[in-house]
Amino acid sequence: MAKDFTKRAEDYSKWYNDLVVKADLAENSGVRGCMVIKPYGFAIWEKMQAELDKMFKATGHVNAYFPLFIPKSYLSKEADHVEGFAKECAVVTHYRLKNSEDGKGVEVDPKAKLEEELIVRPTSETIIWDTYKGWIQSYRDLPILVNQWANVVRWEMRTRLFLRTAEFLWQEGHTAHATRKEAIQETEQMINIYATFAEKFMAMPVIQGLKSANERFAGALETYCIEALMQDGKALQAGTSHFLGQNFAKAFDVKFANKEGNLEYVWATSWGVSTRLMGALIMTHSDDNGLVLPPKLAPFQVVIVPIYKGEEQLAQISEEALKIKADLEDKGVSVKFDKRDTHKPGWKFAEYEFKGVPVRIAIGPRDLENGTVEVARRDTLEKETLQVSDLGNKISNLLEQIQENLYQKAATFRDDNTHHANNWEDFKELIANDAGFVFAHWDGTSETEQKIKEETKATIRCIPINNKLKKGSCIYSGNSSTQKVLFAKSY
Amino acid sequence: MAKDFTKRAEDYSKWYNDLVVKADLAENSGVRGCMVIKPYGFAIWEKMQAELDKMFKATGHVNAYFPLFIPKSYLSKEADHVEGFAKECAVVTHYRLKNSEDGKGVEVDPKAKLEEELIVRPTSETIIWDTYKGWIQSYRDLPILVNQWANVVRWEMRTRLFLRTAEFLWQEGHTAHATRKEAIQETEQMINIYATFAEKFMAMPVIQGLKSANERFAGALETYCIEALMQDGKALQAGTSHFLGQNFAKAFDVKFANKEGNLEYVWATSWGVSTRLMGALIMTHSDDNGLVLPPKLAPFQVVIVPIYKGEEQLAQISEEALKIKADLEDKGVSVKFDKRDTHKPGWKFAEYEFKGVPVRIAIGPRDLENGTVEVARRDTLEKETLQVSDLGNKISNLLEQIQENLYQKAATFRDDNTHHANNWEDFKELIANDAGFVFAHWDGTSETEQKIKEETKATIRCIPINNKLKKGSCIYSGNSSTQKVLFAKSY
Repeated sequence: MAKDFTKRAEDYSKWYNDLVVKADLAENSGVRGCMVIKPYGFAIWEKMQAELDKMFKATGHVNAYFPLFIPKSYLSKEADHVEGFAKECAVVTHYRLKNSEDGKGVEVDPKAKLEEELIVRPTSETIIWDTYKGWIQSYRDLPILVNQWANVVRWEMRTRLFLRTAEFLWQEGHTAHATRKEAIQETEQMINIYATFAEKFMAMPVIQGLKSANERFAGALETYCIEALMQDGKALQAGTSHFLGQNFAKAFDVKFANKEGNLEYVWATSWGVSTRLMGALIMTHSDDNGLVLPPKLAPFQVVIVPIYKGEEQLAQISEEALKIKADLEDKGVSVKFDKRDTHKPGWKFAEYEFKGVPVRIAIGPRDLENGTVEVARRDTLEKETLQVSDLGNKISNLLEQIQENLYQKAATFRDDNTHHANNWEDFKELIANDAGFVFAHWDGTSETEQKIKEETKATIRCIPINNKLKKGSCIYSGNSSTQKVLFAKSY
Repeated sequence: MAKDFTKRAEDYSKWYNDLVVKADLAENSGVRGCMVIKPYGFAIWEKMQAELDKMFKATGHVNAYFPLFIPKSYLSKEADHVEGFAKECAVVTHYRLKNSEDGKGVEVDPKAKLEEELIVRPTSETIIWDTYKGWIQSYRDLPILVNQWANVVRWEMRTRLFLRTAEFLWQEGHTAHATRKEAIQETEQMINIYATFAEKFMAMPVIQGLKSANERFAGALETYCIEALMQDGKALQAGTSHFLGQNFAKAFDVKFANKEGNLEYVWATSWGVSTRLMGALIMTHSDDNGLVLPPKLAPFQVVIVPIYKGEEQLAQISEEALKIKADLEDKGVSVKFDKRDTHKPGWKFAEYEFKGVPVRIAIGPRDLENGTVEVARRDTLEKETLQVSDLGNKISNLLEQIQENLYQKAATFRDDNTHHANNWEDFKELIANDAGFVFAHWDGTSETEQKIKEETKATIRCIPINNKLKKGSCIYSGNSSTQKVLFAKSY
């Protein structure tokens, strides 16, 4: 399994791709830029979905579903939005195929041309605000707190599994509010939820902040984000929450009567995370032995492998294994018992190590005699022999330790790879060496940000929330700066 | 709420559409043929999804995700399949828009034409079997038991909310097996699961059977279905499970090495249910007062409405209502407590009746004194006054009774509207009167089936599983027949 597996130090990008494919997470499909998410990868995404959905519902949100297609004219209604999304979209122009004249296949039927082309949604603000116009008349109809789980398409020239694909899965929240203040609170609440999810479930430390104007969502007044640091020193934007002001309400003429009976435009937010989180999860924890999964998102947290000779021994070990499985499941631990006779124990050990199963339990004939099992943890690769008695609690605790350890390890890595550059030379060197997050003074202009990007490929990842204001001079222009902001190269 | 609501006897079709829209289940969008599923409707679909997903997983299936787009050439690989699906599909021909020359909008960029057009999936057999080719080498890789929850698009000229829309949501299972026998067992297992789901959760009796050749899925050797009878005497196909033989394995060249090392083509099944089930659910139980929901699929099973004057009374009633809510939730009952002061109790009663909430509990000041509540059930519209003590168990039992009553009522309706036609005149009259299911002898030929359809609009809904074989003469041709089959007009 792990043979022919590239090491991170050799070629990080190839390591990532090998890992995704060989651990059965995803693969490229016959359709350019579109991936197949395989069952093992999808099971992780399902766990992410379930946890996020619970958090959304606990804060009063409900799910709904809006059309896949957006009429071309809708996109043009919000000027910034169309600039951001028209460049890279799949366009439906016809609604029928017919048999080819050579009889060998099918071709587009020219008679079936649509009057207005349809865009496969790259994001749904326009179709949703067109709908909200019918839902909102009075302040009594507000707030609307709706989320959608959906597929979206953005045509990408260079794609990478999970990180950048033409089609991806995501959730997009779209809320409508009576006041600016309430909309901003919602925007902040959602970025907080994303940060909590990243840290508690993905065991991935993140920095919360605001995007600079250059990096804002097309149509937003303010974009909040969470940024994580990958093992190759590049940043990954893991979630965004946008304060849209009244832009979409104005574009789609959505007004409400306030308590005094006066008409006002509605305030909006939107927020989303996608299957990109899978890429972030993989790159945060995995190593040269393969995938490493935090227990809270592992499809199964424990695998039990029997070591036996002959049917009779297998029967005895299976009896014990099933007891242990039941005991663990009682404690809320998910367990796979792999007693396939088509593969040897050594092959199974390698397979589950590569697939990042947090805990492996091996049971052999001597264990049966001694009332013990061998327990191996994936994060540290340490093994120990444990008494079977009270194993459920021991494994529960171990899983918590692993979850915590993964977070601490990632946080230490992040802290060790966060630097402060006090001048342009230091900055360039840090960025050139992929040294990670770099804090530096910036004069606040888009021009400077653009030039820094052109010369170093680094962008402003965010202006961290609760950043310390401290005057200085911009590393690039030398002009005055009110605070340091966070730079990095990024995915 | 219920005013301007059409009665079934006046105009069944308008009654259905009014109900879907006024009960906040779904509405038409700005995109022709595509619907918006509103939060209340989507909450019902989520419950359906959750139950079905549990049943799929309990029988060893896993979820995965395959691309939205299918290259045009893939569709042509299976001859029957392309005939069935090429006629009605959305075709992506370009991947970019550009600013119009008049500066007023965006237009398709002619430079961004795809070399090969992409079809928005109408169903995923082709892209999935193209993928399975890479997954299957040996018998050890089989079976593959994969399901996908997805959106699909079939261009429809005449659409109706939930029943027939250009885009709809569904699940599609796609399995691969080493033997014909195992594939047939899977096909049968899945139609059984659908039947169980329809009867136990939707409270909707169904007839299981096989489709005639005319009505088979394009590319299948055998299509199993479940058929339900709607209140207007029309049948609705609620789910299908297809035995695909080796057709797709041959089209995509998918072979496996058997235990003897010989190469064989893989056997396949596919099976699906869609948001069409929402239409079936609505039409099975609802009445002239609005929606009626079986408790197992209701977004909330009980609503509590306080009847009060002034803040102080509301506070007292709320205290009691929250105790009752907690007691019910302890018993696994989902409860909404609606203490909004923007609407009167009478308005709320009408609202929740129209939205089909199974049980309504009203609490007024006199109830507080007496330790009682007023309980109204939606299915029979009966009210009774109950003592608060042990209310959790009483309501749990009531919900079970309602679930059972809805099933029995629908089964009685179905039985009362199932007829046997012994000659062509009787048959024509029954069908012309929308009398429901009609059993009749048929000679087994597609020609006869086609002529019966042309003359009466009735189709063979299915050849019921475990049908009694009893010789007779075809009602149309007079030729010999081995058994009666099930005819009806249908959705």
